[in-house]
Amino acid sequence: MYSGLTSLDCSLAPELQRKIDKKTKPVGSLGKLEEIAMRVGLIQQTLEPSILAPHIMVFAGDHGAARHGISAYPQEVTWQMVENILVGGAAINVFCRHLGIGLSVVDAGVNHHFTANPGLIDAKIAPGTASYISQPAMSATERDTALSRGGEEIHKLAARGCNCVGFGEMGIGNSASASLLTHCLISDKKGGQLAGVAGRGAGLDDAGLDRKLRLLEESVIRGGRINDPLKLVAEYGGFEIAMMAGAMLQSARERMILVIDGFIVTTALLIAHALAPEVLDYCLFAHRSQEPGHRVQLEYLGVKPLLDMEMRLGEGTGAALAMPLVQAAVGFLNEMASFESAGVHEKI
Amino acid sequence: MYSGLTSLDCSLAPELQRKIDKKTKPVGSLGKLEEIAMRVGLIQQTLEPSILAPHIMVFAGDHGAARHGISAYPQEVTWQMVENILVGGAAINVFCRHLGIGLSVVDAGVNHHFTANPGLIDAKIAPGTASYISQPAMSATERDTALSRGGEEIHKLAARGCNCVGFGEMGIGNSASASLLTHCLISDKKGGQLAGVAGRGAGLDDAGLDRKLRLLEESVIRGGRINDPLKLVAEYGGFEIAMMAGAMLQSARERMILVIDGFIVTTALLIAHALAPEVLDYCLFAHRSQEPGHRVQLEYLGVKPLLDMEMRLGEGTGAALAMPLVQAAVGFLNEMASFESAGVHEKI
Repeated sequence: MYSGLTSLDCSLAPELQRKIDKKTKPVGSLGKLEEIAMRVGLIQQTLEPSILAPHIMVFAGDHGAARHGISAYPQEVTWQMVENILVGGAAINVFCRHLGIGLSVVDAGVNHHFTANPGLIDAKIAPGTASYISQPAMSATERDTALSRGGEEIHKLAARGCNCVGFGEMGIGNSASASLLTHCLISDKKGGQLAGVAGRGAGLDDAGLDRKLRLLEESVIRGGRINDPLKLVAEYGGFEIAMMAGAMLQSARERMILVIDGFIVTTALLIAHALAPEVLDYCLFAHRSQEPGHRVQLEYLGVKPLLDMEMRLGEGTGAALAMPLVQAAVGFLNEMASFESAGVHEKI
Repeated sequence: MYSGLTSLDCSLAPELQRKIDKKTKPVGSLGKLEEIAMRVGLIQQTLEPSILAPHIMVFAGDHGAARHGISAYPQEVTWQMVENILVGGAAINVFCRHLGIGLSVVDAGVNHHFTANPGLIDAKIAPGTASYISQPAMSATERDTALSRGGEEIHKLAARGCNCVGFGEMGIGNSASASLLTHCLISDKKGGQLAGVAGRGAGLDDAGLDRKLRLLEESVIRGGRINDPLKLVAEYGGFEIAMMAGAMLQSARERMILVIDGFIVTTALLIAHALAPEVLDYCLFAHRSQEPGHRVQLEYLGVKPLLDMEMRLGEGTGAALAMPLVQAAVGFLNEMASFESAGVHEKI
């Protein structure tokens, strides 16, 4: 399941760099756009890459623990927000419309029965996870189904001509789940505290944050020390995080460009990365979320995000806002004149 | 000439904030986009603002001092790059095409005779400034003509339906001119060194930077202590900076949204700001340039830019990349559902 993923072949890098450096601009002056152009060229193994049918896939799921006070919003907001996305009223709809990005919502495990909708992909594992406060969030079978369904949906998306996918999520309580996973995957091993990767999510006040931390600490004690990333996903959830991890692995296998959003999406990437580190080669990091654990994740992965808009909304909104930058990078590589072609004098 | 500019009327701010906070998202979770939405709403004095015919205006001019080794490129690159823009081969062309932004180049004083072109506005004051190393860059009359021509071109642009203008520039040697102006306008008064606001421009090496610094220090000594911003512009140029300053003042007068690019554009804004501080209310700061003086300028103005793409290209490329963010901000304010309209449960 985690095979078929290779690191980027960098043999084209010198030729790509020459092409970038001959454009009519001071060498290096397009900064991060030049790094994007290089990465996209290497992913696609061409000097003339393209962004085709860019798409945001929002993975939605419910968390049993959300009924125990780990979020500022009640659990039903998950399905209500999915419905809001389906009728075009959420932030991610607005951004995708303005930026010409396709959008679909994947029901990975929302506690609600949706009527059929062309914008909704039914990949529901169960109506929400169990509460990790008292038991594992899902079974090994549920987890494996989630991982493989994520891959299947990406395979279909790629078959429809998309080569650039942004990841988003919706799920009341999923920042708590992401904190547990991030803590166990990376920060616990370096002696970091759970509090360093657990934030206010959608807007907990001080008392709420204290309660969330206490419940998460109890859950870590209950779960015991788990090193295996697959066991961790089953222990703490959620379905949308597991499905995203599977989707990311398949995206890289399809040689797509992965546009990574904020804290919860990067948690799914940490899972994918633990299973197949090569996935990182295919990723662009859209933005820095305000959720404190995201900084810890980005540092662990050794990556710098493109944007810092001080956002913490989720839904893939950061990924959507980064898409024009990816397109600008590919655009300059393909369309700018060279010093020679434009008859512009080079540096003295 | 500098009258008719008023500070923003903020009486609509509470109502705008309520509208922003009722959108289906955690309060504050769209970060800087919420600040943009607020500012644009106040500029346009409406709860339903709009971005109409966004446009980048690139002001081009030559600098006499460029013949004395203050740039990594020879002076003829100014007109060659203007021609490159006119045929669509520069970075700013690519970005404007991809992002649906209008583009025009204003010849404020390039040392070249251009044939007529629909993308070129002939506002030439003279074929380049005199070298400030030995004499003032321009006469008071030339400066005043530049300021007023900038205003006239913006008035025409606004009459064609544009309400959002990004500023860009092209001019070999203009980062040196910008360093002199920035030093005299802000950093010298705080005991700052010229070296703190003078960088490598389009790509000087260490020896080149030393030479540039020496020539600029000589020029400051020759010019003597000048406090008047208008005298400073005449002393150190350039035509494109003076014309941009006039254009900015008129843009604010027309209640347009000003999208400010990097170091040279912000220098023009410092001039405009010294003449009419209210201009700042109408500005959005697109990006943080790699040119070190830009950081000093942004701190002086007390503003934070939207992007940090590690760019230092000019041409208004940073302003162009920020346009989708401005449109996303206005889009969410107009198009997102509210908790009530979408039937989404609010915070517990």
